[in-house]
Amino acid sequence: MNTENCPLVSVIMGSTSDLPIMEKALEFLDSMGVKFEVNALSAHRTPAEVESFAANAQNRGIKVIIAGAGMAAALPGVIAANTVVPVIGVPIKGTFDGLDALLSMIQMPPGIPVATVAVNGALNAAILALQILAVDNRALMQKMAAYKQGLKTKIVKANEALSKLDYNNMV
Amino acid sequence: MNTENCPLVSVIMGSTSDLPIMEKALEFLDSMGVKFEVNALSAHRTPAEVESFAANAQNRGIKVIIAGAGMAAALPGVIAANTVVPVIGVPIKGTFDGLDALLSMIQMPPGIPVATVAVNGALNAAILALQILAVDNRALMQKMAAYKQGLKTKIVKANEALSKLDYNNMV
Amino acid sequence: MNTENCPLVSVIMGSTSDLPIMEKALEFLDSMGVKFEVNALSAHRTPAEVESFAANAQNRGIKVIIAGAGMAAALPGVIAANTVVPVIGVPIKGTFDGLDALLSMIQMPPGIPVATVAVNGALNAAILALQILAVDNRALMQKMAAYKQGLKTKIVKANEALSKLDYNNMV
Amino acid sequence: MNTENCPLVSVIMGSTSDLPIMEKALEFLDSMGVKFEVNALSAHRTPAEVESFAANAQNRGIKVIIAGAGMAAALPGVIAANTVVPVIGVPIKGTFDGLDALLSMIQMPPGIPVATVAVNGALNAAILALQILAVDNRALMQKMAAYKQGLKTKIVKANEALSKLDYNNMV
Amino acid sequence: MNTENCPLVSVIMGSTSDLPIMEKALEFLDSMGVKFEVNALSAHRTPAEVESFAANAQNRGIKVIIAGAGMAAALPGVIAANTVVPVIGVPIKGTFDGLDALLSMIQMPPGIPVATVAVNGALNAAILALQILAVDNRALMQKMAAYKQGLKTKIVKANEALSKLDYNNMV
Amino acid sequence: MNTENCPLVSVIMGSTSDLPIMEKALEFLDSMGVKFEVNALSAHRTPAEVESFAANAQNRGIKVIIAGAGMAAALPGVIAANTVVPVIGVPIKGTFDGLDALLSMIQMPPGIPVATVAVNGALNAAILALQILAVDNRALMQKMAAYKQGLKTKIVKANEALSKLDYNNMV
Amino acid sequence: MNTENCPLVSVIMGSTSDLPIMEKALEFLDSMGVKFEVNALSAHRTPAEVESFAANAQNRGIKVIIAGAGMAAALPGVIAANTVVPVIGVPIKGTFDGLDALLSMIQMPPGIPVATVAVNGALNAAILALQILAVDNRALMQKMAAYKQGLKTKIVKANEALSKLDYNNMV
Amino acid sequence: MNTENCPLVSVIMGSTSDLPIMEKALEFLDSMGVKFEVNALSAHRTPAEVESFAANAQNRGIKVIIAGAGMAAALPGVIAANTVVPVIGVPIKGTFDGLDALLSMIQMPPGIPVATVAVNGALNAAILALQILAVDNRALMQKMAAYKQGLKTKIVKANEALSKLDYNNMV
Repeated sequence: MNTENCPLVSVIMGSTSDLPIMEKALEFLDSMGVKFEVNALSAHRTPAEVESFAANAQNRGIKVIIAGAGMAAALPGVIAANTVVPVIGVPIKGTFDGLDALLSMIQMPPGIPVATVAVNGALNAAILALQILAVDNRALMQKMAAYKQGLKTKIVKANEALSKLDYNNMV
Repeated sequence: MNTENCPLVSVIMGSTSDLPIMEKALEFLDSMGVKFEVNALSAHRTPAEVESFAANAQNRGIKVIIAGAGMAAALPGVIAANTVVPVIGVPIKGTFDGLDALLSMIQMPPGIPVATVAVNGALNAAILALQILAVDNRALMQKMAAYKQGLKTKIVKANEALSKLDYNNMV
Repeated sequence: MNTENCPLVSVIMGSTSDLPIMEKALEFLDSMGVKFEVNALSAHRTPAEVESFAANAQNRGIKVIIAGAGMAAALPGVIAANTVVPVIGVPIKGTFDGLDALLSMIQMPPGIPVATVAVNGALNAAILALQILAVDNRALMQKMAAYKQGLKTKIVKANEALSKLDYNNMV
Repeated sequence: MNTENCPLVSVIMGSTSDLPIMEKALEFLDSMGVKFEVNALSAHRTPAEVESFAANAQNRGIKVIIAGAGMAAALPGVIAANTVVPVIGVPIKGTFDGLDALLSMIQMPPGIPVATVAVNGALNAAILALQILAVDNRALMQKMAAYKQGLKTKIVKANEALSKLDYNNMV
Repeated sequence: MNTENCPLVSVIMGSTSDLPIMEKALEFLDSMGVKFEVNALSAHRTPAEVESFAANAQNRGIKVIIAGAGMAAALPGVIAANTVVPVIGVPIKGTFDGLDALLSMIQMPPGIPVATVAVNGALNAAILALQILAVDNRALMQKMAAYKQGLKTKIVKANEALSKLDYNNMV
Repeated sequence: MNTENCPLVSVIMGSTSDLPIMEKALEFLDSMGVKFEVNALSAHRTPAEVESFAANAQNRGIKVIIAGAGMAAALPGVIAANTVVPVIGVPIKGTFDGLDALLSMIQMPPGIPVATVAVNGALNAAILALQILAVDNRALMQKMAAYKQGLKTKIVKANEALSKLDYNNMV
Repeated sequence: MNTENCPLVSVIMGSTSDLPIMEKALEFLDSMGVKFEVNALSAHRTPAEVESFAANAQNRGIKVIIAGAGMAAALPGVIAANTVVPVIGVPIKGTFDGLDALLSMIQMPPGIPVATVAVNGALNAAILALQILAVDNRALMQKMAAYKQGLKTKIVKANEALSKLDYNNMV
Repeated sequence: MNTENCPLVSVIMGSTSDLPIMEKALEFLDSMGVKFEVNALSAHRTPAEVESFAANAQNRGIKVIIAGAGMAAALPGVIAANTVVPVIGVPIKGTFDGLDALLSMIQMPPGIPVATVAVNGALNAAILALQILAVDNRALMQKMAAYKQGLKTKIVKANEALSKLDYNNMV
C-alpha cells in the first residue's frame, strides 16, 4: 500500500470476502499513483470502529471514502452519517443480484447522500474518487482525461479487429 | 406514555413523519397495559444518539426494541449492532412500495439479526414484542392468547354478517 | 439432539431438502448449549401435524419456534396462527432468489406476526431465538454479548491481516 | 344466496374487506344460475375453521373452491392442503401491487396445486370454476360457450363504434 | 402413450425444449392411469395449428388442457381463447427466473382465465388436471386422496429419519 | 379517419378502454398526414378476428401495424405470428406498472419479433411506424427529420425560459 | 462482411464482449443475403464516434440500425437521438437478468423511439430489420414469409417426433 | 440565479417538467451561497447541446454537474462520457417508481461512473455536490458540518416534542 505520507482515499469493505470485488478499486488507485488505505469494517459487527473511522477521516487527511458492502449494506450510509467527506458506495452482489445492497445504499434520507455506483462497480468507484480529487487538481484532471482517452482508443482498436472478421457465409 | 417505573418496550422511528404508521404499535402496547417509551432517532442524522440509545437499552430495563424506518432503513440494523436486546424492524412504505426499506432491514449479515415484519406492519411488531415478553410471563401469555381468540371471534362474526347477505339476483 | 429435559427451541423445516440451510441454526443452538428439537413438517402436505405441533408447543415447554420454508412458504405463518409462542421465519432460496418465500412469510396480516430474517438466514434465526430466550435470562444475555464481541474480534483480526497486504504495484 | 339444495361452488375470502373484489365472482356465479356459498375465513386468524371447512367440503357436495386473499395469502394453499376439491386462488392487490399475494399462492410445492388467476381476477376465477363444473356437464359447457361468444360480440360492437369515430384533424 | 380410446388430458408445450420440464406432468398422468396426449405447438410459430387444436379439443373428448411455455408465454391464453375446456398454464423458467412467462399467462383479461401453477410446476399441473377430472368421478377422487395421503406419509417418514440424527456437538 | 385510398398503418388495441392511451398515436399519424385505420381486437376474446386481420394485412396494403394491449398482452405477438408486416407493441399500464404487458410483448421467441416501445408509449409507436415507412420514402424521411428538429427547438426554448428564472433567495 | 456496395443494415454493439450474443443477428442477415456492417461503439466510451456514426448513417445508405448493449444501455437511444433511421435495440443480459439494459432502452422519452426486442434477442432484431426492409420490397417480403413457414415446418416435424415417443410406464 | 462570476455547479434536467423535483437542489445550492447555473437539456432530443455542454464544462469552471432525468435516463451517463468533471445523477420518478431511471443511470460500464443518489433525491445531489466542492475548501467543509449538525438538532427537537405526547389511553 502507498503509506508514505497520508492516504487520500480510504477504501472500506464490509467483509474481507468483498476483497475480490473491491480489488478493482485498489488496482486502479495504485495504477494512478494515488495514496490510499484499505480496511474491513462492518456497520453491524464493528459499529464503534466504523463510527470512529468516519469521525476521524477528515482530520487524518482522507479526501474521499469508498465503501463496498452487500446485503443490508448500511456501511456507506453509516459512514456518511459521521463525516462530511464524500462517500462513494459500491453495492456488492449477493442475493437478489445485488438489489438489496443497491437499495440499502442509494435510498438515503434527505441530508446524508451516498454517491452510489453500479453493482460490483468498484473500478468506477475508484475512478469517481479520482474525479473528485481532481476537482481542484489540474494535473490529476489531465491524468483522468488521458485515462478516458485510453478507454476510447482501446474500443476503437477492438472495433478495427472486429471489422476485419468476415461474417460472410458464417453458418 | 406509561412512564411509571421502567418501560419494557422501546419504540423508535427514523423520523416523526413515521408516527402515523408507528402509532398502531403504540396503541396496541397501551391497550395491553405494557409500559413503553417512544423516540424519533435517525441512524443517519443522529448516529451518536442511536448508538448511545442502543448501548444503554438493556441496562435501562428495555426488553424489546421496535424500530420503524423507510428508504435505506439502516435504523433497526444499527441498533441491533449495539445491543443484544431483540430488535423488531418495521419497513415503512415510501418509494418502491417499501421494498427498499424491507430489503435494507431484513438482509442483515450473519451475527446481527433484525426480526422484520410486513411493510407498515407496526401493529404486528407490537404483538411480536408482547409475544417475546410473554415467553417467561404466563399472565401475559394468556393475555396474548385471549387477544388472538378475539381476532378469531371478530372474523367469525363478520362471516355471520356476510352469510346473511343475499347474493341472488345481484345484478 | 439435546433431548435431556425439554427442548426450548423447536426448529421446523418444510422439507428435509432444507436441512443444508437450516443446519446453520442447529449448529449455533448446539454450540450455545441450548436444548432444541428439529422436525420436517409441511404446511401443505402435513397440515394436521403442523397444527397439532403448533397448538401443543407452549405446553411442551417450547419458548421459540424457528420455521424455514421455500416457495409459497406458508409454514411459519400457519404455525403462528396456532400458537402465541414467537415464530421466526427463514425464507429458503429457490425460484426468484427467495423473494417468493420472503413475501409469503413477512407479509402476514394484522394480528399474527412472523419474525422474518434474511433469505437463507438460518444462523441469524438461531441468534434471534437466543436473544429472545435471553430477555429474562441474564446468563444467556451475557453469553450472547460475548458471542457478539467475538464477531467483532474476528473482523478486527481479519482487518489486521488485510492491512498487511501490499497493494502497491498490484498489476 | 342460492341455498336451495347444496351449493356447488364455495367462495372464501380471507377478510370481509376483500368483498368488493370478490363480489365479481359472486355476481357471475349468480348470473349463470350456479348455486354457491360465501364465507370469510382466515388461514391465520381462524385456522381451525379453515381446516374444518376444507376437510368437509367434498362431503358437503362442494365441487370447486374459490379462495381470495391478500398479502401472505396462505388461504388457498391451506385449503388445498386439506381437500382434493380443485382450489382456485385469487391474489388480492395490496402492497407490492399484489405480487406478495400472487407469489404466496402460485408457488405451491409439488403435490398441492392452487389454480391461480390474475391479481384481483375474481371474475375469471368464477368463469374457471364453471369451466371445471362443465367438464362433465354438456348443458353448462354450452352456456359457457355462449357466454364466451357474448364477450366476442361485445368487442365486435365496441369496435364498430370505434371505427365510426373520425380521427382526422384531431388536434 | 395411452392411445386406447380418447385421451382425456392434452399436454401442449411451446417447444420440444420444454420437454424435460413437462415430462413431470406426463409421468404423473401415466402413473395414475389417465389417458393423455402430448404435442409441441407454438402460439407464435404455428398459430393456425394452435387455434385448430383448441377449437377441436372438446369434440375430441379432451377434458383438460395443460399448456407449458416460456418467455412471452401466450400459448395457454391463446388456447383458452378458442375453447371452454379448462386450460392449466405452466410457466417455464428462462430469463427473469420465469417471471416473464408467469405474468404472460396469469394476467389474463376478464372472460378468459388460465389456471396458472408455479414456475416449472408441471407435476402440479397434472395433479390439478386430475383433481378437475375427479370432480364428477368418485373413483379418481379417492385415488387423488390416496396420492395426497402418500405425500404425507413420505414426509412423516423423512421426519422420523431426521429425528434420529444427532445434532449434538456438530461442529 | 383517413379512409381515402388504403391506410398504410393499422392501429389495433386490445380493448376500447385503451383508447385514451392509443389516441396519442392516432393524433400523431393524423398530424403527419399518414393514412391509418383503427380497430379494437382482442387476442383472447376475438382470436379469429385477430388472425384474420393479421393474415390479410399485407394484401390490404398495410405497411406497419401498431398494437397496444395491457396485462397478458398477447395481441402484438399473435398478430406477428400471422404476418410478416412489422408489428410495433405498446404495453398499456395496469397492474404492476405495466411490467406484465411489457414482458408479455417483448420476450417473444426466436423467429417472431415484436418491436416494443415504452409503457404507454403510443406516440413513440407512431413515430417509429413513420420511421419505418420513411425507409424508402425520402419525403417522409425529411418530414420526420423536421419533426425531430422541432422537438429540439421546443426544448431549447423551454431552456431559455428556464434560464430567465431567478433562483436566488428562493426560500 | 458484405462490403460490395453499401450495407443496408448496420449492427452496433457496445463492446466486443457482446459479440457472442450479437452474432446471431449477423448469421441471420448473412443467411438472407442482406448486406450489413458491424461495429463496436460505446455511447459512454466513444460518444463522438457514436454521434458521428448515427448522423451519417442515412447518407451512407443504412436503412436499419441494430444496437445491442448491456447495463445502462444508452447506445440505441443515443443513436436514435441522432438519426431518423429506425433503431432496433437488443438488451444484453448482465446484472439483474438484463432488466437494467431492457429498461434503459425501452423507456425512451416521447419523440425518440427505440424498437426494443427480448433480452439477448439478437436473432429477432435481425428478423425485424428484414421485415422493415421488406416493407417496400416484395421479393424480401416473400423470403421472410418463406422463413416463417420454415419455422412452422420445423416445429411440426419436432412435434411428429415427439408424438412417436411412448410415455407409457415411464417411471 | 447567482450569475456573478462563474457558476461552480451546473444543474441539468432532461425536461422542464423535472423542475419541481430538481428545485430542491437549486434551493439548497442557493441557501449555501454557491454559484450555480440551471439548464434543461435532453440526451435524446438535444444530443449535440448535451455533448457541447459536457465538453466545455470544465473550461467554463464548472466543478460538479448534477443531472436529473426520468425513464431511460441517459442524460448523466452521456454527460459523463464527455467530461471528467464529476457527474451526480438524480433518477426522476415516473413509471416503475423510478426503477427505470435508477438502473439507466447507475449501471454505467467500467470507465465512466455516475454518482447516483436516491429516486427524486435532488436535495441530496446538491449536498453531495457541496461535499465534493468542500474537499479542498476548509470553509465550505465547516459550513457542511454545521448543516449536518443542524439536521441533528432538528431531529432532537422533534423527538422532544414527540416525547411530550401522551400515548396512554389512546383509543
